Amino acid sequence: MKERPIIGIPLGDPAGIGPEITMYTFNDSKTQEIARMFLVGDEYVVRKALEITKLPLKVNVVEKVADAKFEPGTIDMIDMGIITEPYEFGKVDAKCGKASYEYIRLCGELAMAKEIDAVATTPINKESLRAGDIPYIGHTEMFEAISGVKDPLTMFEVNDLRVFFLSRHVSLMDAIKLVKYDRVLDYIKRCTDAMKRLGIEGTMAVAGLNPHSGEHGLFGREEMDEIVPAIEQAQKEGYDVVGPIGADSVFHLALKGKYASVLSLYHDQGHIATKTYDFEKTISLTNSMPFLRTSVDHGTAYSHAGKNTASAVSMIEAVRLAAKYAPSFNKKF
Amino acid sequence: MKERPIIGIPLGDPAGIGPEITMYTFNDSKTQEIARMFLVGDEYVVRKALEITKLPLKVNVVEKVADAKFEPGTIDMIDMGIITEPYEFGKVDAKCGKASYEYIRLCGELAMAKEIDAVATTPINKESLRAGDIPYIGHTEMFEAISGVKDPLTMFEVNDLRVFFLSRHVSLMDAIKLVKYDRVLDYIKRCTDAMKRLGIEGTMAVAGLNPHSGEHGLFGREEMDEIVPAIEQAQKEGYDVVGPIGADSVFHLALKGKYASVLSLYHDQGHIATKTYDFEKTISLTNSMPFLRTSVDHGTAYSHAGKNTASAVSMIEAVRLAAKYAPSFNKKF
Repeated sequence: MKERPIIGIPLGDPAGIGPEITMYTFNDSKTQEIARMFLVGDEYVVRKALEITKLPLKVNVVEKVADAKFEPGTIDMIDMGIITEPYEFGKVDAKCGKASYEYIRLCGELAMAKEIDAVATTPINKESLRAGDIPYIGHTEMFEAISGVKDPLTMFEVNDLRVFFLSRHVSLMDAIKLVKYDRVLDYIKRCTDAMKRLGIEGTMAVAGLNPHSGEHGLFGREEMDEIVPAIEQAQKEGYDVVGPIGADSVFHLALKGKYASVLSLYHDQGHIATKTYDFEKTISLTNSMPFLRTSVDHGTAYSHAGKNTASAVSMIEAVRLAAKYAPSFNKKF
Repeated sequence: MKERPIIGIPLGDPAGIGPEITMYTFNDSKTQEIARMFLVGDEYVVRKALEITKLPLKVNVVEKVADAKFEPGTIDMIDMGIITEPYEFGKVDAKCGKASYEYIRLCGELAMAKEIDAVATTPINKESLRAGDIPYIGHTEMFEAISGVKDPLTMFEVNDLRVFFLSRHVSLMDAIKLVKYDRVLDYIKRCTDAMKRLGIEGTMAVAGLNPHSGEHGLFGREEMDEIVPAIEQAQKEGYDVVGPIGADSVFHLALKGKYASVLSLYHDQGHIATKTYDFEKTISLTNSMPFLRTSVDHGTAYSHAGKNTASAVSMIEAVRLAAKYAPSFNKKF
C-alpha cells in the first residue's frame, strides 16, 4: 500500500457535532496529505454542515468507493438518503439514531470488503440509537456484529503514549477481581501481538494495581500473587514485557519513551493518564477486528451542535492515526 | 507579612541529590525574588555540594535565623555539625540517615517557633533512616511527632491543579472500602477548609470511583450509595462542592480552570493525574499542621548523587509554592 490509505468516515449523529468536525477534517490540508478520506452519510446533512461551517468544500456523491476522486477540497461520499429534510440540532431523534447506525454499518461493510483501509468514527448518541430501535448500545457492539469479533481490543494513544486495558466497563471492585494470573498473561500476549501488528517495536510495561505496586505486599498482594508471575511467564515465552511499574510513574516513563506501551489494570487507570495528559488528542484504536478502527473519545456534544463551535482536533487525530497504522495493520493480516 | 516569606529547607540525605538541588535552588534568581531561604544542614555537606555543582554561592553560617542576611548569592544556614568528614554518595549510611532526620527536626522546630514561615523538604532515604536507628519511617511520621498533628492532610499541586486524597497508602481494595458517606463528607469539609486557609477560592469536585461514575449503578454503586449523599449533605451545609465527576474528565476540567481542587478517592487516582501531567512539577503540600510544608515528591536518586546531573525543577517549585501560600496560611491561623 504505497498510496495514502483510504480512511472511511461514518458521518455520526446528524444532530451532534460529528458532521461539523468531519467537514473541518476534510478541509485540513495536513490530513489530506496523509489520507484519502471517504465519507458515508447523507448528502442533506453534509450540505447543512457546510452551511454552518462555511467551508469551501465540494460534494462528490458516488455509488462506490472506486468512483471517488480523492482531490483536495472535495468530499467523496456515499449518500444513504436517510435524512432528507430538516431536523433539530442537539436533540435526541429516532431518525438520527437510525441514520448514525446505518452510516457505521455500511462503513464497516466497506472495510470488511477491503474497499477502504481503515475506519475513523465520529460520535453517536446512545439515546438516539435507542429511540431509533437500533439493537446495539454503542460502537463496540455494532462493530462486534459487523466484524464477528467478540471482545475487540481497545488501545488509547496520545502523543506516543499507548495504553491497553485489562478491563473496562466494570466496577472498580470487579476490576480488581479480574486481576488474575491467567487474564494478565493473556492480555500481555494479545496486547503485545497487537503492537506488532501496528508495527510498533519496544517494551510493554504492566502498571501496578496498588499504590507503589503494593510495596512488597505491605498494601495489596495482587502484584506478588498474580501480576509478577504472569509477567515472568510471558518473559519466559519471549514477550518483551516488564513490570509491575508503579502507576504514578509508568505513564510518565512511557511518555518519555522508556516503554512502547502500558497495560493498565482498570478503566480509569489508563483513562486518567491519557485524558489528563491531553484530553482532545486521546484517540481510541480497536485492534482485533479484521480492519483497523480509530475513534474520537468524546461525545456528540449536543450543546455545541449546529453552532460551528466544536473543535475538530480529536477527529483530525483519529484520521491521522488510522492512516499511520493502516499500512502495517493490513500488511500483517 | 509584606516581606518575602522565610522558607526553611532541611538539606536532606547527604548521600542523595538533596544537597545538589538545594544549591541550585539557592542560586535561582526567581526563587530569591519570592522567598528568603534558610538552610538547616551541615556546612561540610554544603561545601561538598558547592564543589560538585560549581555554583558561586557563599556560605553564611549563623546561630539563629535572626542572624541571616538573606542576600542573593549567600546561603544562610545553621550548621548542625553532624557530618564533618567524607562519606560516599549513593550509599545507604547510618550517619547520613541520622543527619537527614536531625535537619528536619530542627527545621520543624523553627517552624513551630515561627522563626520561619514554612518548610520545603528535600528527599530522604528510608533505609538510611533505619540504619541510623531513627524511629520514624518517613517525613509524615516525623512531622506528626514535631507538630503533634495526626493524619496531616496532603494536597498535590501541579500547574494550578490541586488534588486531595481520600486515602493514601492502603491497597486499592481497602481504598474502595474507605469510600463511605462519613469519610467522604469529613474530607470534603477538611479539604475545603484547607483550600480556604491557602487563600484559594472556587469549587471542589469529587472524582467518581467507578468508570463513568458507575453510570447510574450499572457498574458500581458507591456513587449512589455513599458519594452523592455526602456531596449533597456538604452542599446543604454550604460547602462549594460538586460531583461525582468522572475521573477521566475531572482532572482535565480542573486544569482548564473549572474546579479549584479535586478530591480523589484513592492514592493512584490523584497520583496518575498529577504525575502524568507533569512529573517534575508535582509538589506535595501538608496542610493541617501549625505550619505549611511543601515537598518534592521524588526520592534521593542515588544513581545521580554527587554527579551534578540531578534536576532542581521540583525543589524550586516546592519553594515557590511554600512562598506563594505561606502568607495566607499564616494569616488565617
